[in-house]
Amino acid sequence: MDYRIEKDTMGEVKVPSDKLWGAQTERSRNNFKIGPASSMPLDIIYGFAYLKKAAAYTNCELGALTVDKRDLIAKVCDEILEGNHDDQFPLVIWQTGSGTQSNMNVNEVVANRAHQLAGKTIGEGEKTLQPNDDVNKSQSSNDTFPTGMHIAAYAKVTKVTLPGLKKLRNTLKQKSEDFKETVKIGRTHFMDATPLTLGQEFSGYVAQLDYGIRALENTLPHLAELALGGTAVGTGLNTPKGYSKRVAEFIAKFTDMPFVSAGNKFEALAAHDAFVETHGALKQLAVSLNKIGNDIRMLASGPRSGIGEINIPANEPGSSIMPGKVNPTQCEALTMVCAQVIGNDTTMSVGGMQGQFELNVFKPVMANALLQSAQLLGDACTSFEEHCAKGIEANTPRIKEHLENSLMLVTALNTKIGYYKAAEIANTAHKNGTTLKEEAANLGYVTEEQFDKWVDPKDMVGNLK
Amino acid sequence: MDYRIEKDTMGEVKVPSDKLWGAQTERSRNNFKIGPASSMPLDIIYGFAYLKKAAAYTNCELGALTVDKRDLIAKVCDEILEGNHDDQFPLVIWQTGSGTQSNMNVNEVVANRAHQLAGKTIGEGEKTLQPNDDVNKSQSSNDTFPTGMHIAAYAKVTKVTLPGLKKLRNTLKQKSEDFKETVKIGRTHFMDATPLTLGQEFSGYVAQLDYGIRALENTLPHLAELALGGTAVGTGLNTPKGYSKRVAEFIAKFTDMPFVSAGNKFEALAAHDAFVETHGALKQLAVSLNKIGNDIRMLASGPRSGIGEINIPANEPGSSIMPGKVNPTQCEALTMVCAQVIGNDTTMSVGGMQGQFELNVFKPVMANALLQSAQLLGDACTSFEEHCAKGIEANTPRIKEHLENSLMLVTALNTKIGYYKAAEIANTAHKNGTTLKEEAANLGYVTEEQFDKWVDPKDMVGNLK
Amino acid sequence: MDYRIEKDTMGEVKVPSDKLWGAQTERSRNNFKIGPASSMPLDIIYGFAYLKKAAAYTNCELGALTVDKRDLIAKVCDEILEGNHDDQFPLVIWQTGSGTQSNMNVNEVVANRAHQLAGKTIGEGEKTLQPNDDVNKSQSSNDTFPTGMHIAAYAKVTKVTLPGLKKLRNTLKQKSEDFKETVKIGRTHFMDATPLTLGQEFSGYVAQLDYGIRALENTLPHLAELALGGTAVGTGLNTPKGYSKRVAEFIAKFTDMPFVSAGNKFEALAAHDAFVETHGALKQLAVSLNKIGNDIRMLASGPRSGIGEINIPANEPGSSIMPGKVNPTQCEALTMVCAQVIGNDTTMSVGGMQGQFELNVFKPVMANALLQSAQLLGDACTSFEEHCAKGIEANTPRIKEHLENSLMLVTALNTKIGYYKAAEIANTAHKNGTTLKEEAANLGYVTEEQFDKWVDPKDMVGNLK
Amino acid sequence: MDYRIEKDTMGEVKVPSDKLWGAQTERSRNNFKIGPASSMPLDIIYGFAYLKKAAAYTNCELGALTVDKRDLIAKVCDEILEGNHDDQFPLVIWQTGSGTQSNMNVNEVVANRAHQLAGKTIGEGEKTLQPNDDVNKSQSSNDTFPTGMHIAAYAKVTKVTLPGLKKLRNTLKQKSEDFKETVKIGRTHFMDATPLTLGQEFSGYVAQLDYGIRALENTLPHLAELALGGTAVGTGLNTPKGYSKRVAEFIAKFTDMPFVSAGNKFEALAAHDAFVETHGALKQLAVSLNKIGNDIRMLASGPRSGIGEINIPANEPGSSIMPGKVNPTQCEALTMVCAQVIGNDTTMSVGGMQGQFELNVFKPVMANALLQSAQLLGDACTSFEEHCAKGIEANTPRIKEHLENSLMLVTALNTKIGYYKAAEIANTAHKNGTTLKEEAANLGYVTEEQFDKWVDPKDMVGNLK
Repeated sequence: MDYRIEKDTMGEVKVPSDKLWGAQTERSRNNFKIGPASSMPLDIIYGFAYLKKAAAYTNCELGALTVDKRDLIAKVCDEILEGNHDDQFPLVIWQTGSGTQSNMNVNEVVANRAHQLAGKTIGEGEKTLQPNDDVNKSQSSNDTFPTGMHIAAYAKVTKVTLPGLKKLRNTLKQKSEDFKETVKIGRTHFMDATPLTLGQEFSGYVAQLDYGIRALENTLPHLAELALGGTAVGTGLNTPKGYSKRVAEFIAKFTDMPFVSAGNKFEALAAHDAFVETHGALKQLAVSLNKIGNDIRMLASGPRSGIGEINIPANEPGSSIMPGKVNPTQCEALTMVCAQVIGNDTTMSVGGMQGQFELNVFKPVMANALLQSAQLLGDACTSFEEHCAKGIEANTPRIKEHLENSLMLVTALNTKIGYYKAAEIANTAHKNGTTLKEEAANLGYVTEEQFDKWVDPKDMVGNLK
Repeated sequence: MDYRIEKDTMGEVKVPSDKLWGAQTERSRNNFKIGPASSMPLDIIYGFAYLKKAAAYTNCELGALTVDKRDLIAKVCDEILEGNHDDQFPLVIWQTGSGTQSNMNVNEVVANRAHQLAGKTIGEGEKTLQPNDDVNKSQSSNDTFPTGMHIAAYAKVTKVTLPGLKKLRNTLKQKSEDFKETVKIGRTHFMDATPLTLGQEFSGYVAQLDYGIRALENTLPHLAELALGGTAVGTGLNTPKGYSKRVAEFIAKFTDMPFVSAGNKFEALAAHDAFVETHGALKQLAVSLNKIGNDIRMLASGPRSGIGEINIPANEPGSSIMPGKVNPTQCEALTMVCAQVIGNDTTMSVGGMQGQFELNVFKPVMANALLQSAQLLGDACTSFEEHCAKGIEANTPRIKEHLENSLMLVTALNTKIGYYKAAEIANTAHKNGTTLKEEAANLGYVTEEQFDKWVDPKDMVGNLK
Repeated sequence: MDYRIEKDTMGEVKVPSDKLWGAQTERSRNNFKIGPASSMPLDIIYGFAYLKKAAAYTNCELGALTVDKRDLIAKVCDEILEGNHDDQFPLVIWQTGSGTQSNMNVNEVVANRAHQLAGKTIGEGEKTLQPNDDVNKSQSSNDTFPTGMHIAAYAKVTKVTLPGLKKLRNTLKQKSEDFKETVKIGRTHFMDATPLTLGQEFSGYVAQLDYGIRALENTLPHLAELALGGTAVGTGLNTPKGYSKRVAEFIAKFTDMPFVSAGNKFEALAAHDAFVETHGALKQLAVSLNKIGNDIRMLASGPRSGIGEINIPANEPGSSIMPGKVNPTQCEALTMVCAQVIGNDTTMSVGGMQGQFELNVFKPVMANALLQSAQLLGDACTSFEEHCAKGIEANTPRIKEHLENSLMLVTALNTKIGYYKAAEIANTAHKNGTTLKEEAANLGYVTEEQFDKWVDPKDMVGNLK
Repeated sequence: MDYRIEKDTMGEVKVPSDKLWGAQTERSRNNFKIGPASSMPLDIIYGFAYLKKAAAYTNCELGALTVDKRDLIAKVCDEILEGNHDDQFPLVIWQTGSGTQSNMNVNEVVANRAHQLAGKTIGEGEKTLQPNDDVNKSQSSNDTFPTGMHIAAYAKVTKVTLPGLKKLRNTLKQKSEDFKETVKIGRTHFMDATPLTLGQEFSGYVAQLDYGIRALENTLPHLAELALGGTAVGTGLNTPKGYSKRVAEFIAKFTDMPFVSAGNKFEALAAHDAFVETHGALKQLAVSLNKIGNDIRMLASGPRSGIGEINIPANEPGSSIMPGKVNPTQCEALTMVCAQVIGNDTTMSVGGMQGQFELNVFKPVMANALLQSAQLLGDACTSFEEHCAKGIEANTPRIKEHLENSLMLVTALNTKIGYYKAAEIANTAHKNGTTLKEEAANLGYVTEEQFDKWVDPKDMVGNLK
């Protein structure tokens, strides 16, 4: 393979000659062979592209960078954002915990690409841009990496997670309305209980998602705060006056998202509680979605020897050995995603709690976990909505059969004859395998007419109206 | 031991004659010998007392209960709230997952105590109150237990956790101001970095707590929603019209806390996402406090061979074998609490995700975990504030010594001579064990006068002012 | 309240005059008001009693302690082990992370009680025993607390957890044999699948527990290693020659458990991986038991509108509002315990990973979590066995009904006519609501005689025999 | 794009004509757009290749498959194992929880590629091999996917994780010997304590890894048990007699790993406790490695204002803004991996606990989490060993300086003058900023000669020899 020589403050390094990166990226490639290559999420690289461009604009506006350099930096950042250089970011998550090497990867790619744009050959002639002094001007890894994390996370949550959640929420809401007259048996402790409507059952899912969406949205203001301007330890050393506020404004403008400068830069470098907070809401949603996915899987179970009160779409053959089998595969994908997100939340805690002094050095693992959770939850909701939720139908005959058999309809008699006599009726019917009405009459507690009048499932679901 | 006979719908049970509880409590005592007795938190019992009283008032107002019965119920509830019957609740957390048996424990104690208050002997004569038909009127375990959970949790969070957090936050804020002129070395990656003030370092802790407190407060509206009125499956079966709204008003009045009726009773029974949500915020605070406690432990390390930049109070001899040793014991208690809270958060996820159909049957374990976390965090903050934080002092000589030695002051030269020459100075000084100023001059990059002018720690901490 | 004055190296402290503890215990009581009092598990105190006695015997044997002092120490330790002084250990888990204050609590109680046994009044006259120099001789908190933890944990796991697990395992094994001829429908993805016997289904539970028990037993050798003899940092400073081996022998003798001296004392103080390891196995068992408890809950669901293939004992009325309701309450208690244990495992990780240099200071929280998990799992298995598992019965009519309806019996035709034609039969029967036999014949793929011969559930469960 | 038509039991599907996969793979691609494409680990696909080949050999040997078909299947499996078809497995982790679609992906690729090898064009002519009837013969997804998981996991743990761990363990062992004479200050509670040697400190790390490796190896027998032969629900339906034992032998032979047929196939399908067990050991190792990585980071801190007792290799420039900064980046990568593994352990619990009846449908998420953890741990240990551990050097001047200042050397006087007088010496020296020797003499407790004789750090580290 062809190489060129790149230098950094530690000396010379051989870099593949067709690559835009420099010495520090190459060192990191060689020093951190942990897991698959290029695992650092591109979303974070794109976050860097936004912030490098914003920093260049701010530096220029504040007199610390020439217009030419600003424009060169901006141009390469735009190219990165267009996806033209995706293969120039070979580093892994499992590098230095500040993400310094990914910051340098971006600095080096911008500098070398700018050199090309200036019509020169990489490695030859005076450097058009210095990675540290120009591209990284008024920046440190310690404030850029968290800024890149926040940009990536905010975008992911608002563009993937929330839309997926809301789409699913709306479809479940529609189902809740479609099924509002479908009276069915309730189940508590997985045992037969008093009736409710299928629509009411689904309304609970909608409420769960509504609370979860609100909880997630509650975390966005913290996530919108950017560390940039804190530089090395939060003091803003080597930044021009007015920089941190202005650079956040440029980022907000370039991303069209409501970013602001963090109120306390020391917190913004040394802790990633904003990520812990946002991921906590994602985890809450995973808890909710696990319940929903599990309920729907169980309601659809059968087709002949399960609960079977709803039908879900048959999207694919369910078994390689059992012919004709259909499975709740979307529920399974969804609940597997929930397992991952719940586990990722532990990762967030373990990373978040171990900041030391002025820096938390679990940035890449935390960033990756949040981005994964946010992506998976959003995608899984979208998939579940499209391939399962919107096709759910009530299996009315089965629902009716279950409802009519239920012994728990006896509960309606509590207010007429008291809990204890009502229990006697239910226990007797259970023992004898008979109906409540028969035993109610046999025991002499209510007449058949009273029974029919007092024990009507339709009247048992409406007290909340 | 003396026994009396109590009955329920399954038959007779022998109950110690000096106890107020009835058949179902006794069955549970015998059927669930899991862990220490009486582990069901009294806070939840008190929550029940509030709600039973409120239910009695609502039932009476809506014509479903006599004034006499209401007053009897209310009187026993008040006795319970005064702590007079703490020994009448022997059940464990590890019972039925709906908490039915603790609900019945309360119903039975209220009924039997009311019988006594009516001048009768328990087990003799017509029952003054029926546990199910009177004390439990318009209620189910499925809505009372979550209501009791929410009352207990809301009280704990607002009366123990938040006050503890705010007390600690205010003391750290004061320290941040006290130390605002104390310039010290920063540390990133646990390595020497550019300077900041000790006050800035503490301001990061304050910011962490501010975000955490806000996150916790964000969860309170969900926690203030009460399930009561949903009864068995969320439909409100067997409640009088208008009950759920009114009973929440009575609870709000009796507790002086802003409770409201849950918007969706199906969610309120089948999911405990409000608990997941609130505990998520407690976990975020545990993550923050672990960082703070750990930093303070490390800053105080020594006394001679550690960091030693702050002094913390010496509250007790630190070692049974090493004479004169003093340890950061409050940091240790605090961070152990954090470990428990972070673990409890996993318990919350595991419990919360496993609701099935109309009921989540992990109520007691979730309630216990949240109450434990909220109590421990509040207490630990109070203890840490009183016995550690408020006594923290800067160890100025040590701080000065560290600051003056730091090679990272060279960073101030970046904007004068560029990153690469500055690195050369630092690397040379490190190699030779010399000072930056010496090597800066030796290398000919800056004069001693320039060095003194440009590299002043006090000027390196103020860019955020 | 009456007080006496106790002293330590920091000065005087007022202690309630009726208590045996001394200055350091009282300091800790006042300095750590976190959660309920006396939360430090008595099991650990008993562990201390064993080790203090063993240390006294070893010190005496090695010439470092008089026989009189040895016997006094041993006598008080025996009293503690008889439970006579349970109210003398008021400290909480949330103290110093080395457990120093609980070590001193034991030292002080032993010294003061010995003073009484010597016929003197506490606080008067020359001290009969010095807490540090005599009772704590050749010891440090740093090696005694982990030793106490290990003694307590080993006892709990072998005397509570494993017996409970094995009892449940054996009962499930018996059920597996009882049900070996009961052919029933299988369920995969919660959907109808090919048949198996109920006995086979239960054999899976037995296998899970067998693996889990083996995994737990695999951890015992590490748990049997004791830190004692390492003293302050693992070097054994201030111990007589031969001490560490001999003291472990005494502990083994006194406890009748196979304790040995830890191979590496530095690891034994600075890490609690033995606890992480043992708790990992407890967590595995919790994962298994959650599956088992959940399956049994679902198999028993109904009684009329669920799966209903087994009957479980009706131990108590299941609902305060639904008369006659019976619930799988033992499954619920068991699975709630699982949630706690799984959460405690996160606590163990968070504590275990944060040792620093020569000491892990998360000892009390880790000890408490493991003891809680081990107790709860053991108790819950015992309870579940007694009140649920041993009373499980097959509901044969329901099992037969489900089996006969199943469309997945078609799988037996794969080897005769191929997967694709078999699928056509199943899909057609599903669509038409008919039987497999009807459609198999209609489609002309097999005759009715062939069908009866080839598709016999009893022949579909035996390939593993 | 060019398409061809593929069929399954549900109908026709358009598949890109240059791809080897069939209808069911394509359905899954379209139905599960969750996260990045092709996320199903190739390790599992390779596991499938081994088992499909073994199944073909077994089927042939037992008379259920022709030699021609066997050889065709085997040939394609070998091609897959050579990595020739890596781009033919486009499915994601987040599909059906049984992994059915990845099983079918393999079945389809084998069938279509065999068609090519037979000289035909895919989609034309009679199928050379049927995906379900030939390639999947005597198999179900329910037993193949767990078999593929186990093969992949066993290989990963034994070929990546354990070698990495052992390499690091051996290097730390060497360091422990290199440093065996280097007496240094110990630290407990992060505070100065009695001395030990740097070699002893490192020996604790070695012991941690030894225990962890043993714990991991303890789990291998369970992991070596294969589900294959259980087919759909564990009964082995549609397998020839003797199949399960024989197929495991073929897999053992082809992989050269000690696989055996699982003792209980019901457990092997319905639970993945073997994965929970193995991952539990990985998590234990993560806990250990976090302690080790953190200690080394702190021991190396500085260079001037930290602990600084060891030097670690400077592999790359540490900061984009602070010139000359060097950071413990390998420690950071390692501890970030630990955070991921600890989180993955929660994912394993959440997945493992939710099996239902005859199948656990969290197979892909569990498989992926374990493979990720095993890979990352192994790689991180290898990286840490190579780029950090083997270059660690003692910073002797710093170590000496710390040791000589330590007040805790006073502990050696306990056995001479008692704990209380020793404490007085230490406290006085601390207060006055003097040396122990000075104050010991001033207080008149020991002469200078006695002090020099009794308080020699070298004598304080050797009691364990």
